[in-house]
Amino acid sequence: MTQEPASSSSNPLNPHPDQAQPAALSHLDSQGQLHMVDVSAKQATARQAIAAGQVRMKAETLAALVAGNNPKGDVIATARLAGLMAAKQTAQLIPLCHPLPLQKIEVSLSPDPQLPGYQIEATVKTKAETGVEMEALTAVAVAALTLYDMAKALDKGIVIEQIRLLRKSGGKSGEWEAEEIS
Amino acid sequence: MTQEPASSSSNPLNPHPDQAQPAALSHLDSQGQLHMVDVSAKQATARQAIAAGQVRMKAETLAALVAGNNPKGDVIATARLAGLMAAKQTAQLIPLCHPLPLQKIEVSLSPDPQLPGYQIEATVKTKAETGVEMEALTAVAVAALTLYDMAKALDKGIVIEQIRLLRKSGGKSGEWEAEEIS
Amino acid sequence: MTQEPASSSSNPLNPHPDQAQPAALSHLDSQGQLHMVDVSAKQATARQAIAAGQVRMKAETLAALVAGNNPKGDVIATARLAGLMAAKQTAQLIPLCHPLPLQKIEVSLSPDPQLPGYQIEATVKTKAETGVEMEALTAVAVAALTLYDMAKALDKGIVIEQIRLLRKSGGKSGEWEAEEIS
Amino acid sequence: MTQEPASSSSNPLNPHPDQAQPAALSHLDSQGQLHMVDVSAKQATARQAIAAGQVRMKAETLAALVAGNNPKGDVIATARLAGLMAAKQTAQLIPLCHPLPLQKIEVSLSPDPQLPGYQIEATVKTKAETGVEMEALTAVAVAALTLYDMAKALDKGIVIEQIRLLRKSGGKSGEWEAEEIS
Amino acid sequence: MTQEPASSSSNPLNPHPDQAQPAALSHLDSQGQLHMVDVSAKQATARQAIAAGQVRMKAETLAALVAGNNPKGDVIATARLAGLMAAKQTAQLIPLCHPLPLQKIEVSLSPDPQLPGYQIEATVKTKAETGVEMEALTAVAVAALTLYDMAKALDKGIVIEQIRLLRKSGGKSGEWEAEEIS
Amino acid sequence: MTQEPASSSSNPLNPHPDQAQPAALSHLDSQGQLHMVDVSAKQATARQAIAAGQVRMKAETLAALVAGNNPKGDVIATARLAGLMAAKQTAQLIPLCHPLPLQKIEVSLSPDPQLPGYQIEATVKTKAETGVEMEALTAVAVAALTLYDMAKALDKGIVIEQIRLLRKSGGKSGEWEAEEIS
Repeated sequence: MTQEPASSSSNPLNPHPDQAQPAALSHLDSQGQLHMVDVSAKQATARQAIAAGQVRMKAETLAALVAGNNPKGDVIATARLAGLMAAKQTAQLIPLCHPLPLQKIEVSLSPDPQLPGYQIEATVKTKAETGVEMEALTAVAVAALTLYDMAKALDKGIVIEQIRLLRKSGGKSGEWEAEEIS
Repeated sequence: MTQEPASSSSNPLNPHPDQAQPAALSHLDSQGQLHMVDVSAKQATARQAIAAGQVRMKAETLAALVAGNNPKGDVIATARLAGLMAAKQTAQLIPLCHPLPLQKIEVSLSPDPQLPGYQIEATVKTKAETGVEMEALTAVAVAALTLYDMAKALDKGIVIEQIRLLRKSGGKSGEWEAEEIS
Repeated sequence: MTQEPASSSSNPLNPHPDQAQPAALSHLDSQGQLHMVDVSAKQATARQAIAAGQVRMKAETLAALVAGNNPKGDVIATARLAGLMAAKQTAQLIPLCHPLPLQKIEVSLSPDPQLPGYQIEATVKTKAETGVEMEALTAVAVAALTLYDMAKALDKGIVIEQIRLLRKSGGKSGEWEAEEIS
Repeated sequence: MTQEPASSSSNPLNPHPDQAQPAALSHLDSQGQLHMVDVSAKQATARQAIAAGQVRMKAETLAALVAGNNPKGDVIATARLAGLMAAKQTAQLIPLCHPLPLQKIEVSLSPDPQLPGYQIEATVKTKAETGVEMEALTAVAVAALTLYDMAKALDKGIVIEQIRLLRKSGGKSGEWEAEEIS
Repeated sequence: MTQEPASSSSNPLNPHPDQAQPAALSHLDSQGQLHMVDVSAKQATARQAIAAGQVRMKAETLAALVAGNNPKGDVIATARLAGLMAAKQTAQLIPLCHPLPLQKIEVSLSPDPQLPGYQIEATVKTKAETGVEMEALTAVAVAALTLYDMAKALDKGIVIEQIRLLRKSGGKSGEWEAEEIS
Repeated sequence: MTQEPASSSSNPLNPHPDQAQPAALSHLDSQGQLHMVDVSAKQATARQAIAAGQVRMKAETLAALVAGNNPKGDVIATARLAGLMAAKQTAQLIPLCHPLPLQKIEVSLSPDPQLPGYQIEATVKTKAETGVEMEALTAVAVAALTLYDMAKALDKGIVIEQIRLLRKSGGKSGEWEAEEIS
């Protein structure tokens, strides 16, 4: 696996390094080092993020998970709780994330016969100086990995896909919504 | 988001619950409860798993990350280390995973102008009674989330996708390889 | 071990499921799923909780622990610190607990020849949107488990018992005190 | 809360400190300091421990939890998973516990109208130089705390009680069974 | 290794135990027990701490690390991220530390041919009732341990030294600066 | 704080990059990336490491800690347990460390009026494919940080120093001992 070449004006990957770099990476300091961004000058405001993702599998695998989910619901509950607990671990998993108080975490999973597989959605709220996109995305990713774990003995071709932000509100950048749901 | 209906022979999601359930969920006990599978009767053998995934973003975002990665390589190193450290946390994140000794963890990221974005691959080795697919997949997912975190200020439309197993070896099921690379 | 039957009006365990459910489980959403409660609309206020528990053992075991505690006090200090550190881990241990800032944690243990064994008490303070009962109870439980661990080679019949809330203050429900100490 | 007096031959708590101390505390070194016991000379053998406990509450609280557990089983699944995941954290919670590979963790909860409340049982297996009593007891304690958390808004008088070892096998001390079940 | 004698007026280690004790240990309660200090009466104010340390090694070891750091910078980035992530774990590592929100964490390492070795510096900011000296010192210590780990195969005589506070601001005690930099 | 220049034959920090690099960094792969070393081909053997360090403070601070340590020994016990528990967290703190089973952890602290301050020593044993130097060094560092935390209100000039390996045994490199104790 090859690494990218050094940036230069002739680098197709990076046509405008000079303005691109400061524009891009808020975690990057003047020495090209990544740090946890200083948010001490920001106000703590109410923030929410909603993320989603899906787990694609064979129809039989989905059927087995749905069957396994009855009557006690452990399959869905296990994946939901794993996602919920992982959201609380985000700052330990993602090196540059700030530890934040979390006021709400909700993770939902639903079977999708068309996929076939499961659709996953997570909503996280905080009152803090920075947003909770990473907490919502981490909840989705770990809920998806947990579904994968429960089904992998049956289906080695499962794919976790489309992990993305759906909506965010609060903070300087204010309201944002993915086009798919506008 | 609606939950699945109770399984029944007329349930399109689950045509054959009776055989599907035992066939499918190794974590499921006779009472429909999920537990950490008993591996005490299995032998510890050498096992390896390779997983992959990708992070799709705008071309400008990729350019900025590549620029930000020079000269000191913090962008790639940060995502790689986050994935590597997360692999060691797999049993704390995925409820039904066994804590395993890990003998090797390798996480690689490379920019892909065609995507555009980054390709991620993780290899994990153990000598244990069960495999390390979840450790490799967790490393990929957290490395991807970390790239996302570093670029999210620039691009809210980033998508983490195609998290999947590429290869596994060792254990009862022996060698397995995804079709894409056969 | 049998699971409870599905709720119904004829279920002796659950005579009035309809009103019991909304009345009871604050973590339960409209789809019967448990989530971390949304506290974003609540005010952060000063809160305190005091919990207690006891560890019952043979008189000789108590004597040995007391002897082992002199002259350097490691037995008591070990159990106290384990409880104190566990209180800081409550939101990682109890799935639906909110991560809270903790302003005070105090854990006390004292030998009780009448039991015979040890009495344990923990006090936790915060300024937050929700209370710290679970932090105080977790501190008591882990301090008790740590005492058990230090004595188990001597006495396999040790019992951890009476883990309960003694007092709480702050928040909507205000002051509460267990009858035993009213 | 008063601390125990210094040990002495006239100390009712500790009639025979000299023989009691070496006999009692395997974690205690020659300087009266507690350490993680050296197990390097021991053989890794198959070991199992079964622990139990109960959560006593008002009959209405039990009814509400049973109602809340239907149709998706989140109440039981949440407590079971919390106990299961906590068992994997035992060495981080109990200062003198050895980190052990765990080959099986099973946590069961069942409503008990006679209590009224829930009965909890946990079984843990390993192949190691030391036993898994603490892992089984920790699983029971955290499952109990999680039930408490879900019901505390309804009932502040809930009591966690009778956390004890039921059975252990493997290791030098071999088979042991609590009298209640002999 | 011998333990200190009991304090007494004739104890050279402790000439004035009576005033020394209350003056000294803010974590110590009236019963001689250490607890997490109650900060509930204090105001949350902006606080910063800067700590430093160094890792002394053979000149060849430094040369190898510097060489190993090019072209991708992984050596420095690995140590910096380890320090940064450890700062977020301070309250889990140091028993009596309060869990605090952290608003900024910055860890810098630079090679020092005169030492020879690396100089390490960490800056942490919070808005809280207590300071972040321990977070900054923990970041330095873990960054140093991580450098040690990467070089230990080459040099078993590496020494981590001079871990100290350089500056602190905020809180009751206000501004403080080590003499070396005054 | 400036970063090191790119290595070159004219770089005083790195006279012989070509041989220095492969010779030096066992964690470095062919692409200049650091990974957790593959130990799957190695045998698990008995290993031990002993590390030491010291905490230098004013004579009055030492006197206060010694006074604070009586009669119940919480100061020493707190630092010892913090070091012991941190050793079990080494693989979570040091990115490239392997998670290892630990068979013994012992941490000792003793006051040293000549320093003045405390001398700290930690011994760790395992049976594994790689050594436990980092576990022993991490125990020393965290025990030292914990002493610092308990005394910092009294003395802002405390210095943690001389954290080093004293002895190691087991593994390919076999017995090693620091010159100071040969």
